[in-house]
Amino acid sequence: MNSNSRGFASDNNAVVHPAIIAALAAANTGHCLAYGDDPYTAEAMETFKRHFGEGIEVFFVFNGTAANVLGLKAATRSHHAVICADTAHIHVDECGAPERFTGCKLLAVPTADGKLTPKTIRPLLHGFGFEHHAQPRVISITQPTELGTLYSVEEIREISGLAAEYGMVLHMDGARLANAAAALDTPLKAMTADAGVDVLSFGGTKNGMMFGEAVVFFDPGLAKDFKYFRKQGMQLGSKMRFIAAQFQALLSGDLWLENARHANRMAALLAEGIRDIPGIDPTQATETNGVFARVPAEHILALQEKSFFYVWNEAISEVRWMTAFDTTEEDVEGFVAMIRETVRS
Amino acid sequence: MNSNSRGFASDNNAVVHPAIIAALAAANTGHCLAYGDDPYTAEAMETFKRHFGEGIEVFFVFNGTAANVLGLKAATRSHHAVICADTAHIHVDECGAPERFTGCKLLAVPTADGKLTPKTIRPLLHGFGFEHHAQPRVISITQPTELGTLYSVEEIREISGLAAEYGMVLHMDGARLANAAAALDTPLKAMTADAGVDVLSFGGTKNGMMFGEAVVFFDPGLAKDFKYFRKQGMQLGSKMRFIAAQFQALLSGDLWLENARHANRMAALLAEGIRDIPGIDPTQATETNGVFARVPAEHILALQEKSFFYVWNEAISEVRWMTAFDTTEEDVEGFVAMIRETVRS
Amino acid sequence: MNSNSRGFASDNNAVVHPAIIAALAAANTGHCLAYGDDPYTAEAMETFKRHFGEGIEVFFVFNGTAANVLGLKAATRSHHAVICADTAHIHVDECGAPERFTGCKLLAVPTADGKLTPKTIRPLLHGFGFEHHAQPRVISITQPTELGTLYSVEEIREISGLAAEYGMVLHMDGARLANAAAALDTPLKAMTADAGVDVLSFGGTKNGMMFGEAVVFFDPGLAKDFKYFRKQGMQLGSKMRFIAAQFQALLSGDLWLENARHANRMAALLAEGIRDIPGIDPTQATETNGVFARVPAEHILALQEKSFFYVWNEAISEVRWMTAFDTTEEDVEGFVAMIRETVRS
Amino acid sequence: MNSNSRGFASDNNAVVHPAIIAALAAANTGHCLAYGDDPYTAEAMETFKRHFGEGIEVFFVFNGTAANVLGLKAATRSHHAVICADTAHIHVDECGAPERFTGCKLLAVPTADGKLTPKTIRPLLHGFGFEHHAQPRVISITQPTELGTLYSVEEIREISGLAAEYGMVLHMDGARLANAAAALDTPLKAMTADAGVDVLSFGGTKNGMMFGEAVVFFDPGLAKDFKYFRKQGMQLGSKMRFIAAQFQALLSGDLWLENARHANRMAALLAEGIRDIPGIDPTQATETNGVFARVPAEHILALQEKSFFYVWNEAISEVRWMTAFDTTEEDVEGFVAMIRETVRS
Repeated sequence: MNSNSRGFASDNNAVVHPAIIAALAAANTGHCLAYGDDPYTAEAMETFKRHFGEGIEVFFVFNGTAANVLGLKAATRSHHAVICADTAHIHVDECGAPERFTGCKLLAVPTADGKLTPKTIRPLLHGFGFEHHAQPRVISITQPTELGTLYSVEEIREISGLAAEYGMVLHMDGARLANAAAALDTPLKAMTADAGVDVLSFGGTKNGMMFGEAVVFFDPGLAKDFKYFRKQGMQLGSKMRFIAAQFQALLSGDLWLENARHANRMAALLAEGIRDIPGIDPTQATETNGVFARVPAEHILALQEKSFFYVWNEAISEVRWMTAFDTTEEDVEGFVAMIRETVRS
Repeated sequence: MNSNSRGFASDNNAVVHPAIIAALAAANTGHCLAYGDDPYTAEAMETFKRHFGEGIEVFFVFNGTAANVLGLKAATRSHHAVICADTAHIHVDECGAPERFTGCKLLAVPTADGKLTPKTIRPLLHGFGFEHHAQPRVISITQPTELGTLYSVEEIREISGLAAEYGMVLHMDGARLANAAAALDTPLKAMTADAGVDVLSFGGTKNGMMFGEAVVFFDPGLAKDFKYFRKQGMQLGSKMRFIAAQFQALLSGDLWLENARHANRMAALLAEGIRDIPGIDPTQATETNGVFARVPAEHILALQEKSFFYVWNEAISEVRWMTAFDTTEEDVEGFVAMIRETVRS
Repeated sequence: MNSNSRGFASDNNAVVHPAIIAALAAANTGHCLAYGDDPYTAEAMETFKRHFGEGIEVFFVFNGTAANVLGLKAATRSHHAVICADTAHIHVDECGAPERFTGCKLLAVPTADGKLTPKTIRPLLHGFGFEHHAQPRVISITQPTELGTLYSVEEIREISGLAAEYGMVLHMDGARLANAAAALDTPLKAMTADAGVDVLSFGGTKNGMMFGEAVVFFDPGLAKDFKYFRKQGMQLGSKMRFIAAQFQALLSGDLWLENARHANRMAALLAEGIRDIPGIDPTQATETNGVFARVPAEHILALQEKSFFYVWNEAISEVRWMTAFDTTEEDVEGFVAMIRETVRS
Repeated sequence: MNSNSRGFASDNNAVVHPAIIAALAAANTGHCLAYGDDPYTAEAMETFKRHFGEGIEVFFVFNGTAANVLGLKAATRSHHAVICADTAHIHVDECGAPERFTGCKLLAVPTADGKLTPKTIRPLLHGFGFEHHAQPRVISITQPTELGTLYSVEEIREISGLAAEYGMVLHMDGARLANAAAALDTPLKAMTADAGVDVLSFGGTKNGMMFGEAVVFFDPGLAKDFKYFRKQGMQLGSKMRFIAAQFQALLSGDLWLENARHANRMAALLAEGIRDIPGIDPTQATETNGVFARVPAEHILALQEKSFFYVWNEAISEVRWMTAFDTTEEDVEGFVAMIRETVRS
C-alpha cells in the first residue's frame, strides 16, 4: 500500500508520532493485568497528576466522543440540560450521542467565534426547580474552540464563576487542549483546575497518538461511579497499557507541547501565506492549528481535487484547513502555492 | 518499567503479536482520510470477505462489549428481548451495557456448559404479539463459549433454524472465534454465514491484536443504519487505519489461525498437566484455550499469590485458567509444577 | 373543599365537561377486558375514523407529553433529529422527555409566531448520510401553535411536501387541534390526513376531558410496533374504556367543536376587551384560545395576585392568558375590568 | 352499549367504585392549578401521611408500570441491578420498561410462590465494586405477590435488613397492597415504613379507582429529583385533582379496606368452591384475591368460552382466577357451578 501525502483536511488524518509507536513497542512485553490495573496505567496517571494536580481522577477511553459523553454522563442525570456553543463538537459532530447516552437536552448558543460568554449563557439560566423544563446543569466549553479560537484563562474563570453561582458544572472539551496550552504559553493546570473546570476531555489522538483520550475530573465527587459509566459505555479497553504508554510518551516530557507548538506554527504560516491571495478572506483569528477562510465558491471543487479539505459553512463559502504535528513547512508552502495558482486561474 | 512474566489469568493480559506491531508501524506513513475512508480499511474489508463471503458488511469498533452491544442494537428495537446463556458475556460481564444501550430485556438461560440448545430456548419463545411481554427477537450464542466449550456447526444450524422459524435473528459473540475455528478445523464462514448466523462479533484483541473488533453482518439489511449506531455509540475511531492494518496482518495470512492453534494447544497441555494432581478436577471439557477446574478452596489464595488467576465460581471452588498466543510450553510446565507443589503442601 | 373560581392561567386548570363526567358514569357497568380490548374502545376508534379517515391507526395514552414522545419514537431511531419551532412543547415543556425516550436530537428553529416554514426548515436539511450528524427525520409542527397562531391548510401542505421531498415524516402536536378546526372552520381530516400529516397527537384534556390523548397514525407503517412502544412507554391504561368513553362523548357529536368554538370566542372577547387598555400590547394574533400581550412589568405581580397567570417571556414583559371551554363572558368581563383597574392605578 | 357481565379474568376488568365516581364529580368545580399544585392533591397527601407516616413523600402517576419504573429510576443509576422474583410484574409484564427507562439489569430469582427470601437473594449479592458487573442496588418485592401470596411483616423485615446490610434499597410493588393489609389485618405503615421499605408503588386502580397510582418514598433522599423523573417519564398529569380526589375517597375512610376485604373474601369463597371439583388442584395458597389452580388442559378452552380467564402457566396447565371489589357471591357461585359442570362433562 502506497503512503499518502499529507494534506490539510484534518489533524485526524495525520500519522502517529514515531515516539508513540516506539512506546507501544516498548510496552509490548510480558503479561499485564487487563483493564487498567497495570503499572503502565499507574505511571501515566502519576504523570497526569504532575500536569493537572494531585487531587484529580483520570480515566482513559478510546475516543473523543466517548470522553465528552461519559464526562457529561458523570455530571448529570437525565432531566438536566447542557449549555454549549452551537459549534460544539457535542452538538454538531457526535450524531446525538450526548442526548442518547445521557438523556439530557443540549441548549446550543449561537456564537460568532465558537466561544460562550457569561452574557450569552445567562439567558438560559432560568426555570430552575420548574419540572417542565430540563434543568440547566452543565456549561460545556471547547478549548480551543472548533473554530481554532481561544478562551483566555480569565474568560474561563468568568464562566466557571457563573457555573459556581448556579451550582452548575463546568465541562471542557479539550480534544486539542495541548494546542491551547502552546498558544497561550500556559500550563495545562492553569487553564483547567486553576480556572474552575470540573471535568475535562483531554485529547491524545490529534496530538500524535494512535488512539486514546482521557477524562480528567477536578471534582472527584463527579468521578465516583465513573468506572461503571465507562464500562457500561463500552469504553473500558482490555489492553489498557497501550493507551497508558502513549500518554506517558506524550506527557512525561515535552512531546505534547512540541507537537502542539509545531502544528500551531504551521497554521500561522498557512494563514500568513494566504493573506494576500485575492478572494481568500480569513473568517477567524488563527490562534491554534486551524485556518478558517472564505474561498470563492467556484474554486472550491478544484482545490479539493488537488488536496482534499472540508467546507465548513457552505452558505458563506467558508472552508477549514487544519495543520498537524506532522505538517511540514514544505507542505504549507506547496499548499499555499497550489491555492494561489488555482484561484488565479 | 520491568516486563511482567506471563500468567494464566486472561488472554487479555497477553502482549500484542510482533507482526501486529510491525503492521502498525508500516501503516504509519502519510495522511489518510479518517473514520474508515482509507485504503487500509478497504483492503481489510476485502480480506474479511475472503473469509466470510462476498455478501457481508463489516464495521470495526474498539472493543468486544461494543461489538456485541452495537450488533444487538442493529437487530432490535427497545421492546425486544435477547435470549442468551446465563454465562454469556453480554449477560454477565458488560455491566448492563446491552440493556442500557438497546433498551432490550436479556433472557438468560441456565446451562451446564455455556451452550444454548433448541430445547432450552423453546420455552422462552412465547408471548409473541402480546404487548405486555418483551418480544423475543434475538438468540445470542458465544462461540466458543465463556467456558471454552464449542458448538458444532450442526448445533449452530439447529439454532439458526429455530431462529428462522420464529423470524428471529441469530447473533454470535465470536470474541474468540479464531480459537473455535482452530479447534473444529473449520473455515470461519462454515461456522457463521453458512450456519445461519446473521450478525457476528469477531474478536481481534484476544487473538493478538492491540485493540479492535469487527461487527460482521451476514444479513445486510441489518447493517443499514449501522454506521450511525457506531458513531452514536461512541465507537467510530478516527485513525481507523490502525485497526484495519491489524486485522489485515492477522487475517491476510494464517497468523490468526496459528495464534489460535497455539493457544488451544497450550490449554490442552495445561489440562493434561493437571490431570493427575489430586484434588484438581476439570469442570469443563478443554476444547479451546480455557481450562476450568475445581481446586481445593484452601489452596486458591496461595496459588493466586504465586501466579494470579480468577475464581470463576466461588460456590463450587471453580477456577479459570486461560492460555494465549504467547503462552509457552515452559510457562505451562512451570505453572503445572507450581500447582502440583502448592496443592501437595 | 371550596370550589375555586375560574381564571386565565391555563386551559388545563378547567373542569371536565359535564357530558364527559356523565359518559364516565355510563361506562361504569360490568366487567370489560382491560388494556383496550373492550367495546368502548372499539366504538371510539370508529368515531376517530369518521373524523380522520378509514386508513388510520389510533392509540390512546394518558397525556400530551406521552402522545408527542411516543409518536416521535414510532417515527425515529435514536440517530435521527427532529426539527421543531423553538417554542414547541416538545422542546420547551417536556423536561427533555423526547430526547430521553427517543435518543434523538431536537433542532429548534427560532420563530416569531411559533410557525415553521419551508424557508426556515431548509437550512437544517443537510448532512444526510454523514454519520457524524444526527439525521433529520421528522418535522414537528404544532397546530395551533403554543402562541395560539394557526397554520393554514396550505401552509401545512407546503411543509408536508418538503418532508416528502426528503423522505421525512411530518408530526403534528395537536394538543388543541379542536381549537384550530373551530377557528379555520375546517374538518379535522383536512388539516391532517389530507394535508400530509403522518402522525398526530390529538388532545382531549384541554378540550374538556379529564385525561386522555390520542396518537393518530396516517401512515400505518409507522404504527407497526406502536403497541409495544406504548406499553414500554408506561402509557397503556388498564381501565382503557374510561379514556375511550370520554373521546366518544367528545367526538361522536359536536361537543369537541362547541367546546373549542366557545373557548376561541372567549379569547377573542378578551383580546377585544384589552385592546384599548393603555400599556397592554398584544404580541400575537389571537387566532384560537390564547391571548399574548406585553403588560407593564410593574403591574404583573398585582395582576397575578388578583387572578393568577403565567409570564411567557420575562425579557419583554409578555404574558399569556388562556381561555377554556368553561370560561364565561362574565369571567372575561371581570378579568378585563380587573386589568383595566389595576393598570390604571 | 350493553353492560358486560362480571368475570374472573382480572381485577383490572372491574368497574370503578361508585364512591370514586362521585368523588370525581364532586371535584369537578372551578379552576384549579394544574399539575398537582391544587388543594385536592394537598389534602390527599395529608391522608397518605396518616396511613404511611409523616416523613414520606408522595407522587401520583397514571398507572402501575409507571409507579414501578419511576420508583426504581429514583433509586438507581444505569449501572445498577435490580433483584426481583421471576414472577415480578417488573420482570414479566412491563415489556422491558424497567430496563428501557432505568438502564438497569434485572436479576430474576426463580421462586415457587413468588416470594424472595434472604437465602435466595444472597447468591446475587456479589461483584460489588467490580465494574464488569451491574451493581446490585435494589431488591424489589411484590406484596401481595403476583401469585396472591403474602410476605409476613417479619419476612419483609428480614429482607430490608439484608438490603440495609449491603447499602441497598428495598422497593415494594404494592399494586394490590390494600389486599395484603386486609389479609394480614395490618396497617399499611406496618408493612412498609415500619418494615424497612424505602420506596413503594401503591396501587389504586385494582382497588376501585379509575386510574392513578402513587409512588411513596419512605427515604425522602430518594425523592429529591423525582418530580423531574415523573415529568420526563411522561407521567405528570395536568388535571391532577382527579387522581387526588380518587385517592382521597379511597383512603380518607375505610373504602380501600372494605374493597380489599371483599375481594379477598370472594377469592376464599372461590377457592373453597372448587376444592372438591375433581381434577382442579390449587397451586398456591389463596391468601388475597387470586386463585391459582391446575385445570385439566382439555377443559380450559370450554371454560374460557363460558367466562374468559388467563392461563398462567401453559406447561403445567395452571390458570389464574381473580376476584375484585365488585365480585358478588352470586358471581362466584355461578362460576364454580359452571366449572363443575364443564369439567364433569
